[in-house]
Amino acid sequence: MINNQQNILIIGAGLCGSLLALRLGQRGYNVTVYEMRPDLRKTDISAGRSINLAFSDRGNKAMKLVGIEDKVKDLCIPMNGRMLHDKGGNTFLSNYSGREHEYINSISRQDLNALLLDEAEKHKNVNIHFNKKCLSVDFKNTTALFQDYATKDEFIEDADTIIATDGAGSALRKSYYLEKEFLFSFSQEYLTHGYKELSILPAKDGGYKTYKNALHIWPRGDFMLIALPNLDGSFTVTLFLSYAEGEYNFNNLSTPEIVTEFFQKEFPDALELMPNLVEDFFENPTAPLGTVKCSPWHYKGNTLLMGDAAHAIVPFYGQGMNASFEDVVEFDKVLDKNLDNWEATFKAYEKNRKKDTDAIADLAVDNFHEMKDHVGQAIFQEKRKIEMALEKAFPKDYSSKYSLVTFNENIGYREAMLKGRAQDKAILNMLSDGVISTDDDIAAILDKVKTETKAILEDDRIAGLK
Amino acid sequence: MINNQQNILIIGAGLCGSLLALRLGQRGYNVTVYEMRPDLRKTDISAGRSINLAFSDRGNKAMKLVGIEDKVKDLCIPMNGRMLHDKGGNTFLSNYSGREHEYINSISRQDLNALLLDEAEKHKNVNIHFNKKCLSVDFKNTTALFQDYATKDEFIEDADTIIATDGAGSALRKSYYLEKEFLFSFSQEYLTHGYKELSILPAKDGGYKTYKNALHIWPRGDFMLIALPNLDGSFTVTLFLSYAEGEYNFNNLSTPEIVTEFFQKEFPDALELMPNLVEDFFENPTAPLGTVKCSPWHYKGNTLLMGDAAHAIVPFYGQGMNASFEDVVEFDKVLDKNLDNWEATFKAYEKNRKKDTDAIADLAVDNFHEMKDHVGQAIFQEKRKIEMALEKAFPKDYSSKYSLVTFNENIGYREAMLKGRAQDKAILNMLSDGVISTDDDIAAILDKVKTETKAILEDDRIAGLK
Repeated sequence: MINNQQNILIIGAGLCGSLLALRLGQRGYNVTVYEMRPDLRKTDISAGRSINLAFSDRGNKAMKLVGIEDKVKDLCIPMNGRMLHDKGGNTFLSNYSGREHEYINSISRQDLNALLLDEAEKHKNVNIHFNKKCLSVDFKNTTALFQDYATKDEFIEDADTIIATDGAGSALRKSYYLEKEFLFSFSQEYLTHGYKELSILPAKDGGYKTYKNALHIWPRGDFMLIALPNLDGSFTVTLFLSYAEGEYNFNNLSTPEIVTEFFQKEFPDALELMPNLVEDFFENPTAPLGTVKCSPWHYKGNTLLMGDAAHAIVPFYGQGMNASFEDVVEFDKVLDKNLDNWEATFKAYEKNRKKDTDAIADLAVDNFHEMKDHVGQAIFQEKRKIEMALEKAFPKDYSSKYSLVTFNENIGYREAMLKGRAQDKAILNMLSDGVISTDDDIAAILDKVKTETKAILEDDRIAGLK
Repeated sequence: MINNQQNILIIGAGLCGSLLALRLGQRGYNVTVYEMRPDLRKTDISAGRSINLAFSDRGNKAMKLVGIEDKVKDLCIPMNGRMLHDKGGNTFLSNYSGREHEYINSISRQDLNALLLDEAEKHKNVNIHFNKKCLSVDFKNTTALFQDYATKDEFIEDADTIIATDGAGSALRKSYYLEKEFLFSFSQEYLTHGYKELSILPAKDGGYKTYKNALHIWPRGDFMLIALPNLDGSFTVTLFLSYAEGEYNFNNLSTPEIVTEFFQKEFPDALELMPNLVEDFFENPTAPLGTVKCSPWHYKGNTLLMGDAAHAIVPFYGQGMNASFEDVVEFDKVLDKNLDNWEATFKAYEKNRKKDTDAIADLAVDNFHEMKDHVGQAIFQEKRKIEMALEKAFPKDYSSKYSLVTFNENIGYREAMLKGRAQDKAILNMLSDGVISTDDDIAAILDKVKTETKAILEDDRIAGLK
């Protein structure tokens, strides 16, 4: 059993690190956190990180665990569905669920992170230091090398165990890779698309220029624009576009004229709301979209990767932050087991958790194609219509893949993926074969979908497929 | 169009590099090759690389291209099937194909590489230098840094283009990764198992101690032993075993007594043929089993990765060398198109080829599980029996996944994988559901398998699955 007087060093006070510090502080550990950036409660958030995020049930489960669910609710803007915008400026609202109480939220990264830091610092046994960048981790000796941003001085910190929540560019993960001390499986996969953040500013009266309670999507097949609302009446807009392929791409959108022409042609209704487009476009960076997977996450009981440091994913399922928060919930469950030592704890955590973070990484890439392309196709729209009707008529008996992933926080991502994909395959094929149609009796559809989904899962099992 | 007076620098004179040098020499280019190892025609091959390899139709296609098919045939030992050995010492020969002319071959890495070097050096425009290790590649300036093994002197080589065939530990791939000049997707995935080479020495009369014309397998569920014949009457034996899991593993096989006990219990008939087991076991290294994928393979027209440098795979489909040889055939096809420049050539090559090397990487991992486990299961044996009967009765109308991958060199690995997996799924499910049995009329089985395979592929297509 692990003595809770142990000294835990956390690298990174982003969303995952500050939640982890709060939870470990509540459990009584001596927690020291080093963060490379300045304290975001005192300075503006740095550019290059997304401004708002999708917050949903898996994330909320973690907020309940640490007892701040109500405080977080005040920061949330509910988004009930996707508002689809076609080239003619027509809009269509596609709900996320047939159950009215199921929706996702837009939340400010900065506000939420600030809240978590405030809550963590209420614990005397939690100490957070800013402007200290981790350069490398000596995982064999359980020490980390830091550099002070102001003085440039380097110093070494010792601990009983080190948990790195230092994001996609993790210093600990880099040390695992470069040291070649053990067989470290690792992948970084980039999409051919990058992204750029833009904005729709508030109306003159401080209100919202377009419908507030939705995630807006302009799907265009090979690229897309999305927008999420902020509390101040603005929307953060993100353009997802290929770097090099297609008529318009990030490489050739090089002048104000071409950028304006592109938006005029593809997103005319958005352009009307964005007089600041050209300024935003050339001021804000273009950033890549990558997935990182690795294993093992831990080196003995000395060090552990958590959050994006262990599993960075693309943003298309709105699950990046939620998955990292769920990491803390799952880690907390393992701590409850009172295993003998950190090594047993880390091993049990990774064994249980990795299958699920691998699954959400793959689901997020799938959803990129769904959002930019499939949502505009007739057969996918029919499937969606049927699933909304099923969820409405049988709220306890049916959940779509999206609902399983987003609103069913008591099943893992992997189970949600396998069941959700089988349901999608069942519905799409029965629609294509004329076995079901959107006009059929909904109870009859439910029976057919359940039977066919079960058969698909069973066929895969017999063939030895995942 | 590319002038064939161009200077091409090849890094690595292994199997892929020496074949590439030969082919580019035949096409008239000025080819310079640097190899880190000594000339294997003058010294013993170094330990740690497999001694013999499986050679089959895709590899042979390349030998035909360069006109040395007959010379290679003299180095080959045909293996008609898998000879399965159970714990009781009983054996069962499972053919690779129902068509008698389809078999794979065991071939010596050293003999084949020596032949390719001899053939390449017959061309005055091909120059091969040994004992020169590549340290890094400056891909922006199309130069490579080498170190002479004897003098330790470093020197830089310039070229019009550089092709790296320097294997799984490629210096060019490392430069791509470390330089961060472009978005480089990269993965290294290790199995939890490693491997160790052992041997069955020739009989006193110089003959083979066990059946010569088969690939011997001792499948044991979680681990396995295999053996391939050599021309001198010996077999090279390989143990595939977990590093850390299970009752016996590489970590705990630490004394002669435990090693002997393990073989006595699991491989008693092999142990009888291996009086040299303990010596081999403690002299030979334990090596990891990894898969490497990456993209892009090329940087503009300056540099290109080929062979294991671009796509290292695990050995379980016997396709590592064959895939690398096929790379040269596919590259040669693109050269025939006379594209404008190296960049267009490299781009067209990668676009066509990567889907296939990704597929064989995945198939090779699948086959690990098939060889150590599935071959011992009743339903997989029934499937295999049906497929042999189909191939025998309908040699032009049916090919199993194994045949599609191994003997159908005119379709790509990806097509072979998709069709082969669908066939496997069809047969396994129809066996499980009692729709077909091994006693049925074979023509009726063919009809059902074809219909069901088509339905499976169509269902996947409609669901948007690969």
